[in-house]
Amino acid sequence: MGAEKHELFSDVGRLLVYGTDEPGIVAAITDILSAAGANIISLDQHTSDPDGGRFFQRTVFSMPHLSAELPALEDKLGEALKRFRLDHSLVDASKKKRIAVMASTSDHCVLDLLWRYRRGELPVDIAMVISNHTGLDEDVRSLGIPFFHTPTAGKPREEVEARQLELLKGNVDLVVLARYMQILTEDFIEGLGAPVINIHHSFLPAFIGAAPYRKAKERGVKLVGATAHYVTKDLDEGPIIAQDVIAVSHRDTAADLQRRGADVERRVLSSAVQAHCEDRVLRDGSATIVF
Amino acid sequence: MGAEKHELFSDVGRLLVYGTDEPGIVAAITDILSAAGANIISLDQHTSDPDGGRFFQRTVFSMPHLSAELPALEDKLGEALKRFRLDHSLVDASKKKRIAVMASTSDHCVLDLLWRYRRGELPVDIAMVISNHTGLDEDVRSLGIPFFHTPTAGKPREEVEARQLELLKGNVDLVVLARYMQILTEDFIEGLGAPVINIHHSFLPAFIGAAPYRKAKERGVKLVGATAHYVTKDLDEGPIIAQDVIAVSHRDTAADLQRRGADVERRVLSSAVQAHCEDRVLRDGSATIVF
Amino acid sequence: MGAEKHELFSDVGRLLVYGTDEPGIVAAITDILSAAGANIISLDQHTSDPDGGRFFQRTVFSMPHLSAELPALEDKLGEALKRFRLDHSLVDASKKKRIAVMASTSDHCVLDLLWRYRRGELPVDIAMVISNHTGLDEDVRSLGIPFFHTPTAGKPREEVEARQLELLKGNVDLVVLARYMQILTEDFIEGLGAPVINIHHSFLPAFIGAAPYRKAKERGVKLVGATAHYVTKDLDEGPIIAQDVIAVSHRDTAADLQRRGADVERRVLSSAVQAHCEDRVLRDGSATIVF
Amino acid sequence: MGAEKHELFSDVGRLLVYGTDEPGIVAAITDILSAAGANIISLDQHTSDPDGGRFFQRTVFSMPHLSAELPALEDKLGEALKRFRLDHSLVDASKKKRIAVMASTSDHCVLDLLWRYRRGELPVDIAMVISNHTGLDEDVRSLGIPFFHTPTAGKPREEVEARQLELLKGNVDLVVLARYMQILTEDFIEGLGAPVINIHHSFLPAFIGAAPYRKAKERGVKLVGATAHYVTKDLDEGPIIAQDVIAVSHRDTAADLQRRGADVERRVLSSAVQAHCEDRVLRDGSATIVF
Repeated sequence: MGAEKHELFSDVGRLLVYGTDEPGIVAAITDILSAAGANIISLDQHTSDPDGGRFFQRTVFSMPHLSAELPALEDKLGEALKRFRLDHSLVDASKKKRIAVMASTSDHCVLDLLWRYRRGELPVDIAMVISNHTGLDEDVRSLGIPFFHTPTAGKPREEVEARQLELLKGNVDLVVLARYMQILTEDFIEGLGAPVINIHHSFLPAFIGAAPYRKAKERGVKLVGATAHYVTKDLDEGPIIAQDVIAVSHRDTAADLQRRGADVERRVLSSAVQAHCEDRVLRDGSATIVF
Repeated sequence: MGAEKHELFSDVGRLLVYGTDEPGIVAAITDILSAAGANIISLDQHTSDPDGGRFFQRTVFSMPHLSAELPALEDKLGEALKRFRLDHSLVDASKKKRIAVMASTSDHCVLDLLWRYRRGELPVDIAMVISNHTGLDEDVRSLGIPFFHTPTAGKPREEVEARQLELLKGNVDLVVLARYMQILTEDFIEGLGAPVINIHHSFLPAFIGAAPYRKAKERGVKLVGATAHYVTKDLDEGPIIAQDVIAVSHRDTAADLQRRGADVERRVLSSAVQAHCEDRVLRDGSATIVF
Repeated sequence: MGAEKHELFSDVGRLLVYGTDEPGIVAAITDILSAAGANIISLDQHTSDPDGGRFFQRTVFSMPHLSAELPALEDKLGEALKRFRLDHSLVDASKKKRIAVMASTSDHCVLDLLWRYRRGELPVDIAMVISNHTGLDEDVRSLGIPFFHTPTAGKPREEVEARQLELLKGNVDLVVLARYMQILTEDFIEGLGAPVINIHHSFLPAFIGAAPYRKAKERGVKLVGATAHYVTKDLDEGPIIAQDVIAVSHRDTAADLQRRGADVERRVLSSAVQAHCEDRVLRDGSATIVF
Repeated sequence: MGAEKHELFSDVGRLLVYGTDEPGIVAAITDILSAAGANIISLDQHTSDPDGGRFFQRTVFSMPHLSAELPALEDKLGEALKRFRLDHSLVDASKKKRIAVMASTSDHCVLDLLWRYRRGELPVDIAMVISNHTGLDEDVRSLGIPFFHTPTAGKPREEVEARQLELLKGNVDLVVLARYMQILTEDFIEGLGAPVINIHHSFLPAFIGAAPYRKAKERGVKLVGATAHYVTKDLDEGPIIAQDVIAVSHRDTAADLQRRGADVERRVLSSAVQAHCEDRVLRDGSATIVF
């Protein structure tokens, strides 16, 4: 999942196409790109099953005057892909995704995202950080990023989520739950109209729910891990984007597992956010294609 | 978990001590060993909690004329450790554990054990292989190891297990389930009087039960793995000895996961059997200490 | 690097294309495939640099009556790709690669290849095993595979290699050095006319040359590993196909490193052979593209 | 290498003993500790060779009124261990090591150490950060840690090192080179009188010297990594404390390798600093024992 340096250049586009497979799709797409003067930099294509499976393609291409040409290319692609009844998304790679980060008290995932953002590693603009606690405000604001406090204690969930939606809606392309310890309602997720990525502190589907490190210690596992996934209405069941684990032993207390797991959490979350923002991730039912 | 070459020399002993922690245990043990003329080669000690936790110690030592001196040393240790109400086990490292391997149709785990045994890597004598299928008989017998066929199809479980117990009881120090696809009854496990190690083809507690690779494909996980554990009456719940995973992707079909997971299974099982047979594993409730 | 089950079906072809990048290549290729009635199952494309870099593409496709249609398709591709001055290779995926395995005294890499072959995991036909020692003959012949003994002790290298070339030339598509401990001459490699894959028992370029585990112990590294690479005239310098490592510690003796490293060696070699035989590997100067 | 929570309690001591092995050492040490009223929490012991090898032991113990009792215990141990001609070090676990961090322009290793320090994960006091560049000053000073700028450009090395020694000498127990891109002279290292840990951005001994990521890209390796080691007068040759790698592919440019390797560097360096500061690391010639 290397960051393609070239994609950050201007005049680079990314095209995602997905739907029911049938013969001729790749040729049709590459013909349109070729006729439009695009040069393909990389192309990844996957078919879930050659007999009537699902089709997935990610194409990165360079094209002179891309931003001016994009509407025309969009039209041509739309027309051609309608014939195949395929969905697609065409983006200018120089346009960074706008993201919001939501957090509670743990700082490791938020700080890792902020640090990669500051280094220019993550191709995103962080529009805001929202937390139901104070504590992260200084770290966030010192980078010139707005911090909003939406306390949850003693408040009806609807009121809190309404306030959060007000902040987020229309302003972001992605919401990242960086150890945000509140369950979001289905209404919130639908109302948001943007994907939500969460980091779960276990190698799902092991230790679903709360307190995974304590459960891991009790069960005596020799690995702990983390899982980044899209949030759906089914808690801890959304499509998995990235997972990793580290070896642990009897020497590690539950607190050690938590401390050492934090390293995996921040790494896995940042990697999932990067993949998403480089348009590498396509959903396939309850799973994902990560090109 | 390196095999200690020195432990395979003659005149090397291994002492495991475990029980409730209290001050002075390590000193008492090492004094006895020292007074008996033993030289400690390695010592690992762990306390689950300094305030009234459980105590675990593995000591490897060299001692001239070990086999002749062992009974006297046993007496001295027994007396001393009784005072601390600790359990212990004292073994001559040159005495290999006698093991039986039980299998069904999959050959990868059995062959890996046989191969390591033939190379002299595993400090065991394989007393027999028992299978509810034929198919592995030639591979097994070509190494001079007895193969017993105990078919299960259409037979009452009690009858099959009775026949297996007849073969095993008193003849082995350890039974290894190398993808043996029958559930063993509590009666069998108790009747056996020897520990049983099983390999489960998932990173437990994920995908407990049957068909873990299919479930893994459906859930879209980015890791598959394997777990070696002691068998207890609670299926897939016994103390875990070793676990490992490998990264997989959307390109892998359920069949690929099974094929690639087989590599992890054989590695994890062999590693657990090796650790057990080098007396590195101590049970701690539902977990293990692996020194 | 999942084995694509579908590729083992009949009527599946694989096309590798490589050379200097220029616009329009992907479209040209996919057009030809599409016009020929091929349905693309997967396509991976890589460009080393969008400005005048090297172009690499692997396409897997299904096509009715493939074997009958292959010559015509070959013609069309040849013509089109000549225009781009690109090299290509077009193969019927149902045609297994014929391989020869060369070994010395260590058995772990050979046995792993034999075992995967027997399980049907490796898409190869093992035409022969050649060894400068006896010892592996029974294992090899019991699978119905010819074993040839070409002793090296006290013989001029030219004589030995001439005898080996006689056995190999024209009979195999790939030679696998499975811990064959003789250095092959440039003349042998050129005379062979088929690629040669070697397994080196270190994570190259660390510990080039002989006795890497002893050197690793002396240097006190915390990892040992293995490297599978194509053999070129420059010893241990050929393009790397696969590498892996495992963690080791001060507890491991040089003999332990060797024993534990053997697990990595066999895994890495088998994985490289599989990738090569699934036409996933393209050379890029002193490096490789592994799709 | 789990942080032992208990060790951070007051009244916990750590004893390291090392030298030539002979019978009776462990018993002698544990007797003294036991007689002094210490309760052993964990004990790790290693002998490089049972026949005249080197002896290493790390013991963690609890003892009421430790700080008051330490001088007396030190005396008793010193006397007993003199008889065995062993070296030892006895420390109060509640006394944090004072460290200095030296850096140049890269921020990832420094920030990771600062962040873990702020979280209370690293058992250290960061006495100062020294850099030959400005740029990190704000991050450092915002945590209340002194930042010193010792520019190197256009200055004689002796002058720069003299200024640095002035700042460091007597003030720190450990110097951490967190991507400090200047070679330190042997005089500096000797004059300092404290150990120095460096992070090298490759899996040593591969890619010794400058620009390892560029070399890794050219060589086409499938892994990149990092190595934390003690600094000796032989550049890149000091005893290795920790190493790790990640898989990379042809998709990764040299810049990607650098970016992705940075994650490994910070993880490996922090882990080595933690191990050192928990008194887990003993030097054994050109290698280390990490308990």
